Amino acid sequence: MPGKSDLAKLNCSLARAMNLVGDWWTLLIVRDAFLGAERFGEFQASLGIARNILAKRLDNLTRASILVREGAPRRPLYRLTEKGKALLPALVALQQWGDAWVSAEGPPIIVTDVAGRPVDPVELRSKGAIVDAAVARFVAGPGATPRTRAYLATLAERRG
Amino acid sequence: MPGKSDLAKLNCSLARAMNLVGDWWTLLIVRDAFLGAERFGEFQASLGIARNILAKRLDNLTRASILVREGAPRRPLYRLTEKGKALLPALVALQQWGDAWVSAEGPPIIVTDVAGRPVDPVELRSKGAIVDAAVARFVAGPGATPRTRAYLATLAERRG
Repeated sequence: MPGKSDLAKLNCSLARAMNLVGDWWTLLIVRDAFLGAERFGEFQASLGIARNILAKRLDNLTRASILVREGAPRRPLYRLTEKGKALLPALVALQQWGDAWVSAEGPPIIVTDVAGRPVDPVELRSKGAIVDAAVARFVAGPGATPRTRAYLATLAERRG
Repeated sequence: MPGKSDLAKLNCSLARAMNLVGDWWTLLIVRDAFLGAERFGEFQASLGIARNILAKRLDNLTRASILVREGAPRRPLYRLTEKGKALLPALVALQQWGDAWVSAEGPPIIVTDVAGRPVDPVELRSKGAIVDAAVARFVAGPGATPRTRAYLATLAERRG
């Protein structure tokens, strides 16, 4: 059975992203950091997660430079780095999808700007125009391996 | 140790989203469906994943109404539903984060509109203005439980 480590080897930035933040709890820890959680106990209070699991996840996030450990070593604060803060659009887009398609009772948490105005639904755009699933295309980029190029070509050929 | 099933119980649309698409392979299968993959063998060629693992993930995605099974039962096609297509912004946002922060050799895959223009970086906005991590706020929504409200209040209080 392929394990998590295989993900990093795929020629795919989504796989590499999932390799860092794609396990059950990691992205929720990042979400709590956006909410303002900094201390071990604050993450634990939110997630109800076993101490050893949480400690492991915080270590992984620190090693991946998504969180940085600050303050006294015996009572550390975990804060988002620039790399971590850059996850905000992806995180909110996934949360909004959950709001729309999974959470029947309405959004548990709403993201707003400082003035309290809710953020707009996250959309994919090109030059201002919305790019939805019907018009989106996926093409080989500069980091594509021959295998990725061949796969994209095969799919494009079948589509005609 | 808390398992995947606990995620669905958290009062959080992100957790509920991760419960459906947050395992190592599931979001990559959805990505391949956006690329145009429809057949079992096409997903397998892309991911190099064991047949039983892939079959299980495709079943889960079909049960979650993210994919729908069409065509002959012995040779089914897997196609994205509206719920599945609605994952595009979240998926591309996460891919772009991987492009920017993890994939050193440049993006393997670029998302464009039909005319071949690359999509813009996915950003969080409110009334047109960018909402980044410095100004984003998270407040209780209509679906918040008392526990979620209390947690948000505790963090807000400490922040001052």
